[in-house]
Parts: sequence; structure tokens; C-alpha cells
Amino acid sequence: MNDSSNPSPSPGRSALLTDLYQLTMLGGYHREGKWRQQAVFEYSFRSLPPDAGFAVFAGLEPLLEYWTHLRFSEEDLEYLRTLNLFEEDFLAVLRDFKPSCTVKAPLEGTIVFPNTPLIEIQGPLGEVQLYETVLLNLINYQTLIATKAARICLAAEGDPVLEFGLRRAQGPDGGLGGSRAAHIGGCDATSNVLAGKTYDIPLSGTHAHSWVMSFPSELEAFQAYARTYPDRCTLLVDTYDTLATGVPNAIQVFREMRDRGYEFRPAIRLDSGDLAKLSKGAYRQLREAGFADPLIIASGDLEEDLIADLKRQGAKINAWGVGTHLITSRDSPSLNGVYKLMAVEREGNWEPRIKVSSNIAKTTDPGRKQAIRYYDAAGSPLADVLYRHDEAPRTGEVLEFRNRMVTNQEIQVRGIRDSEPLLKEVVREGRRILEPEPIHSLRDRARRQVGSLSEEYKRLRNLEIYKVLLSPALAELKEELLRKHAG
Amino acid sequence: MNDSSNPSPSPGRSALLTDLYQLTMLGGYHREGKWRQQAVFEYSFRSLPPDAGFAVFAGLEPLLEYWTHLRFSEEDLEYLRTLNLFEEDFLAVLRDFKPSCTVKAPLEGTIVFPNTPLIEIQGPLGEVQLYETVLLNLINYQTLIATKAARICLAAEGDPVLEFGLRRAQGPDGGLGGSRAAHIGGCDATSNVLAGKTYDIPLSGTHAHSWVMSFPSELEAFQAYARTYPDRCTLLVDTYDTLATGVPNAIQVFREMRDRGYEFRPAIRLDSGDLAKLSKGAYRQLREAGFADPLIIASGDLEEDLIADLKRQGAKINAWGVGTHLITSRDSPSLNGVYKLMAVEREGNWEPRIKVSSNIAKTTDPGRKQAIRYYDAAGSPLADVLYRHDEAPRTGEVLEFRNRMVTNQEIQVRGIRDSEPLLKEVVREGRRILEPEPIHSLRDRARRQVGSLSEEYKRLRNLEIYKVLLSPALAELKEELLRKHAG
Repeated sequence: MNDSSNPSPSPGRSALLTDLYQLTMLGGYHREGKWRQQAVFEYSFRSLPPDAGFAVFAGLEPLLEYWTHLRFSEEDLEYLRTLNLFEEDFLAVLRDFKPSCTVKAPLEGTIVFPNTPLIEIQGPLGEVQLYETVLLNLINYQTLIATKAARICLAAEGDPVLEFGLRRAQGPDGGLGGSRAAHIGGCDATSNVLAGKTYDIPLSGTHAHSWVMSFPSELEAFQAYARTYPDRCTLLVDTYDTLATGVPNAIQVFREMRDRGYEFRPAIRLDSGDLAKLSKGAYRQLREAGFADPLIIASGDLEEDLIADLKRQGAKINAWGVGTHLITSRDSPSLNGVYKLMAVEREGNWEPRIKVSSNIAKTTDPGRKQAIRYYDAAGSPLADVLYRHDEAPRTGEVLEFRNRMVTNQEIQVRGIRDSEPLLKEVVREGRRILEPEPIHSLRDRARRQVGSLSEEYKRLRNLEIYKVLLSPALAELKEELLRKHAG
Repeated sequence: MNDSSNPSPSPGRSALLTDLYQLTMLGGYHREGKWRQQAVFEYSFRSLPPDAGFAVFAGLEPLLEYWTHLRFSEEDLEYLRTLNLFEEDFLAVLRDFKPSCTVKAPLEGTIVFPNTPLIEIQGPLGEVQLYETVLLNLINYQTLIATKAARICLAAEGDPVLEFGLRRAQGPDGGLGGSRAAHIGGCDATSNVLAGKTYDIPLSGTHAHSWVMSFPSELEAFQAYARTYPDRCTLLVDTYDTLATGVPNAIQVFREMRDRGYEFRPAIRLDSGDLAKLSKGAYRQLREAGFADPLIIASGDLEEDLIADLKRQGAKINAWGVGTHLITSRDSPSLNGVYKLMAVEREGNWEPRIKVSSNIAKTTDPGRKQAIRYYDAAGSPLADVLYRHDEAPRTGEVLEFRNRMVTNQEIQVRGIRDSEPLLKEVVREGRRILEPEPIHSLRDRARRQVGSLSEEYKRLRNLEIYKVLLSPALAELKEELLRKHAG
């Protein structure tokens, strides 16, 4: 049991990838005869990253993967026994654990907003409680990174965005799951070879400074690289002096390749310094040397604001390699998603539950719910409305709902043309319904939905806040439960 | 090759956990006959997280683990073949890949500083290049989190600090590796059951709001929890109203337990609201009820500044549960570690290499080096000095070295009493030398070394900058290479 005896587990597969309190609660539910009581939990996140106007839902497939394979091994149970917390008959329940829940969620790549329920899980209390930690771990991170990627791609205005984050990711899974989410959010390729293999993401990458430094001269290094990969030769030109030696040496090599009859697009990468100035200087030198349409890739601490600013300056950059800021969502490295108990079944009825907080934004919207998204005539989302599960959602061009915090405040939604339920059934009573989708479908969905979103949710600053509202009946239920707990 | 066909790899084990450009460079080194040229790479990081005065080195054992098992599988090679980038004889080299390098590093838990070389790897160019990505991934993240943990523990002034981060970690490994690093940095326990099992870290956790909400009343929920875990009963008191119902209900349960003769320390957890005010109110109620020494655990978006501020306000909190801010190092979620080529062997000699940058701080200190740490009479580190590998490190009470950026500036180190090389040989010619250490040894080392560090590197603000200096001979080598590349 020291650092070496249990090397490199595959954490994404272990039933112990959870917080201890889930297991102590499960032990208690078992002892109190509550394990099989039906319950409904919901996942939602409380706020968007700063300066984001929308999020891109991601992480569902890895969650379903985990869920499908979730079993407690004998070794897991042996470890739990050493904690002296659990009774043998409870450990026997864990040994026989088999998912039986029903899960509803949006499809990955769907645009989502704070406080809309995003995953609803119904099943035995003991089972659905167990899912909390891993669900939050997978959905929070992948949704965060897909969202960051979408914003970076908006700033890049259609230029290819390459994800280069693995070396700065928070662990191997941070890199792998992050590459997946970044591709869903809109990135074109990744440097992460394992992500390429696992998720069928296009790969990108050529050479590092060390390649150049390992040769007696920069020119010899470039010549050797061009010999090895004549048709995919992007040269990194900033090892010593970008405009004085890097670009001139690259041009000499491109000329030699052209003279030998190779068909290629001359490509360079800039990884440091004043990217606006250097890219313009490099572009000018390449044009003057007769290379009319060079590919100039920039990398080095890029993020959406910097990309937008380089665009504004007319930088001659046409592809963007983004690492640290993307893979860690550096300005906001966690999404505050929560998984809350909404209802328990007693004597055949669903009893709604509420979590009260002195911060009214954190007080939950109680009970089993439906989430309906309303659209305008252009197909742009107008608002998400939460209904009680037993209500018929309304239709009409103008509808009145309630503020979820100030529950007696009416809010009108106008110009409604269409509506649809946001959550689809993906697992029914322990059986998976949703077929796995190829990752390019998820990415296409995200791109389509970002495209359909009004500009006021997509700009870089001063974003409009998307409306997430309550039906009057749900607002009244919330008021009633709040009165009960206050009194 | 879609999202489902290669589910849940164990990313921490795959040889493909790397950037594509490592493999394209390897292909080039192979083709150019440079694969077996001896080379030396060094890892160092460029700057500390904001408001940190030191870092705690971590991640070496996971790196050695990975390194020990690094092999390209047939499936890996098959995937690489599909990229149409690599020649068959190069893939054959990968198939036969076997580490043969020599690695030097500090032991985990050692206090470290920016720009000191921390890992030196010497071996064939093709081999040592390959390690870059995974080394950066593992060392950057674990060192970052061990550092954050050490700062949080300093703010907690000896109170237990519990790591609760898994749900907000960046993927499963983010949680697992982060829990490991947090424990090395000083945390007392984790909520992450898999981390407990894998790394022998004490576990912590009781129940969530959902436990309380699943019962008809808070009192019944507390009574049921106390029945299940009478000797480890920490009650979460903020589901509805902390001081009006939560603490009074907890007190009633503690009285019932006392009346039944249980031996226990009454314990509550506060997870929201005004922690200073609520902890004082809860403490008063518990004292008045005859519980003289309650354990009051606080959680909810805690970090070092907030803990220090709560201490300053006299909050009655004696254990700290820290999640998001710790596991993601929220204020600075990446460490800017780099892995740079320092020297290549040509005709039996080590030729030093330099990476030049317009930002002088990013220009590398060239060549093979030794790192010597000097200590004062109290055993506190005074400075790290980098020497050429073939120099004899100096001794004496007062010594003069050079600024690593302004290389002609002399800097005196006074009061020297002792010195030692910072890097130990941990792998020799492909054979592991360092025995795995139990995690508590790593944690003890960090605690001892943090204890030995002068206060000016440990306060929360306005930290002193630790000196990392060059020997005059190394400074002259750097000047010489800079002149060469300028001319």
C-alpha cells in the first residue's frame, strides 16, 4: 500500500473514483432500508465562465462509458473493508451492484446555460447517489473545455484552431478528455496522439526548438526536416532570431524544395515574441521570395482576447495553436456544476425537495422537472423554461413565465415560433438507449448550434444573459417549499 | 475509430501519450542517423504561481512508473501507420524501444525554485526527446498542486486540511494525481477513495445535503446518520438554516448519543454562508449544550487567503475542507515548466546548446550543469547556484556568483555554512536506482523543508525572490553563446 504497489490505475474505470461520503451515505441508506427508495437527482451548473455567454455540453459519452462498466471488484471491496466503516451485508450489496437507473440529458455539442437541469437521473437512492462524483468530474471538465474551445474558435473567425495542451494539462486524463472536449467545441486538430487514436481527432504537429538546436546550424536542421517530411513541412522559425535567420533559412529551404519539384504550401510556425510584427515581417519576406500564400501558424500562450487583438492588428496569421489557456480554461479552470436531490418517492408519489441557501441563486428549483427550449422564427434559442414534470408545456407566440430567484416576478418571452424538450432519454432502466455518435457529429452539432445563437451571447465582452425561467406552477411550488422551511 | 470503439484507455500507460511532433522529430532523427547521438535535456519551470515564494517538487514517481512501462504496442504502431507519416524501419525502431537513459532529479517533496534545473535526462537523442510531453504533463501538474497545498496548509496554521477536489478536478487523473500531490504538499486526508486506495492516503468524508433532503426531516436524517456511524459522526448543518435548525438538531442528536453512552467528539460541517459568523454561533450553541471541544469543519470555495482571513476574524473552525481552489490551483492552473535541449555529444565532447529569446528570462542557461544548494547556519536554503558540469563547486562563507539574466552582474551570497547537490541519480543507463518511497516520507520531507525555509518565502504576499545564480564560468559560457548567435 505504498506509492509503488498499486501503480497507474486506470482511474476512469474504477468504482472507487468517488468521494468517501457517497459510500458512507450508501452504507446509511442500506442500513436504514432506504437504498431502493426511488429518487431523482439533477445536474446543472450555476454560472458560466467569466465573459462566456453560453456553454457547450460535453462529457456524456465518457460518463455513459464509465456507467456501463461500473462494478465493484473484489480488490475494491477488500480496500473498503480496511476502512472499518462498512458492514459486510452492505459490501455484499456493492458486490452485486448493477445500474438500473433512467437518465435524461441533452446530446453532446448542445448549447446549454446555467441553472437549466442538464442531466436527470432517476433510480434507487443508493444507486443514483453513487454517480454524483464521477458525473461532476467528467461533465464539469469537458463542458468547461468545449465551451472555452468554442469561444476561441469564434475569436479565430474560421481559421483553423489547433489544440496543443497536453503538456500543460492537469494530468494524462486532463489532456485526453480535454482534447476530446476541445474538438467537440470546434478545434480542428490536436497534438495529442493518444487523443487522435482514441477519439479519431485529426493530428497536428511538426518540430520543436530542440530539433533545430540538435543540428550544427538552423539551416541544416530545416533542410533535414524538409528531407524527412517534404509534403508536411512546417518550420519553426524562432529558435534564434525569427526575421534575421529563421525566416531567411526557411525561405532557402522552401526554394530548394521548389527547385526539386515538390508540391507544397510553405508553412512556418512562430512560437514567441511580437506575433503581430513578426508575422507581418515573415509574410513580407515569404511573398518577396515568391511564396504567395504561406501558412503562418502562431502559438505561445494564445487565448481568445489575444487572438482577437492580433486579428485587429492585421497579423498575418492563418492558423492558431492554443495550449495552456484552452486545456486548463486558464481564466476559470472549473465549472461549478452541482448534482442535487430533487425528489424522492413516498407511497407512490414524488415528493419534491429543496436545498435552501442564504444565497438565493443557490437555492434549488425543486421537484422533478421538464426543461423546454423556446426558439424564434430564425431558429435562435430564446429561453429555457423549467416546468413541473406533470405540467403540459405551453405554446404560443408570447408567453409569461417567472424569474427563478424573484419567483413572483413575471417575465415575458416574445416571438416564440418553436419549442422542444432539451433532455432526451439516453438510458432507460439500466439499458443504454443512446447510440454512441462519432465525434464529428458532436462537433457538427456544436458548430450548428453556436451558429444559430444570437450575436449577443457570442461576443467577447458584455454578454447578454440568456433567460432560464420557471413556469408559474414551478415558481409556486418553490415559494411553497421555501415558506415551509422558513416556518 | 469513433467515440465508442476505443473506450476508456488508461492514458497514464500509453506510449502515445505524447505530442505528434515528438514522433515526427523521432522519425527525422532516425532518418538522419541522429537517433543514437547522446543528448542532455533539462526540465525547469520559469516562474512560480502568483504570490508563491517556493514550490514543492512532485510527480517524479508517476513519471518513473510511466517510464518503466513505456512500450509501443502493435495497436499503437498500427495507428501510427494510418497517419502516412512514418517509414516502416522507423516504426520497427519504436517497436524495439527500450529506455537506456540516465535521469537525475530532486526527491519528491523537495522545495524548488524557478530556473533551477530539476530533471536532467541524458541518453540517445531519439529517446530523450520522446519523454518531453509526458514529463511536462506529470511534473507540471503535480508540482503545481503540491505547491498550492503547502500554501493552504501554511494558512491553516497546523489545523487539518482535507482535500475534497475530485468533483471539480480536470478529469479522473486530475483528481487522482491531484490528491496525491496535495497529500505530499501537506494535506491530511482526501475524499477521493481511489486515491486513498492507490496511494495510501487517509480518507475523509461523511454526508451531503442530499442525505438530509432524502429524509422527512433534518432531525431524522441526523439521527439515522448517528445510528449508522456513531463513532465517526460529522453532521452537515447547513441544508436549511444553520443556526435555527441545523445546529440545534445536531445538538439534540449528540445529546442522545451521549445519553446512550457513546464516546465521540461532536463534529459538524459548515458548507456555505458567512463561515466566521456561523462557526462562532455554532460553537456557542455547542458549548452551551455542554460540548466543550467540538470539531467544526468548514468547506465551500476555500483557499489560502480566505482561510487566513477567517483565522484573523477568530472563526471557530478547526479543520478545513478544500476543493476546487486546491485541485485546480484555481488562481494559476498551470505551471510553466519546460524541457529544453542543453547539450549534444559530438566526437566525444559535450557541445552546449542555447535557446535564444527576445525575452531574456526565457533564454536558456546552456550546457550540462550541476545545481548546488547553499544553506546558512540554521539549515535554511540561501541560494541555488548552477555550475558547468565540469567545474568543482565552490565552498566558503561568502561567495560571488552571477545574475542569470544580467550575466555580468555579480551577486554575493553570505553566511554559507553548507551545500549539497540538488539532483540525485534516480535512473542509471535505463535501470531504476531510486527505490519507491512511501507517500508519508515524501510528505514528511516537504514539511521538513517548508519548515526550514525562511519566513520571507512563506508569507501570503510580497514574497522575497529566492536567488538562483550562475557560476562565473557558466555565465561566461552563456555570454559566449549569445555573442555567437547575435553575430
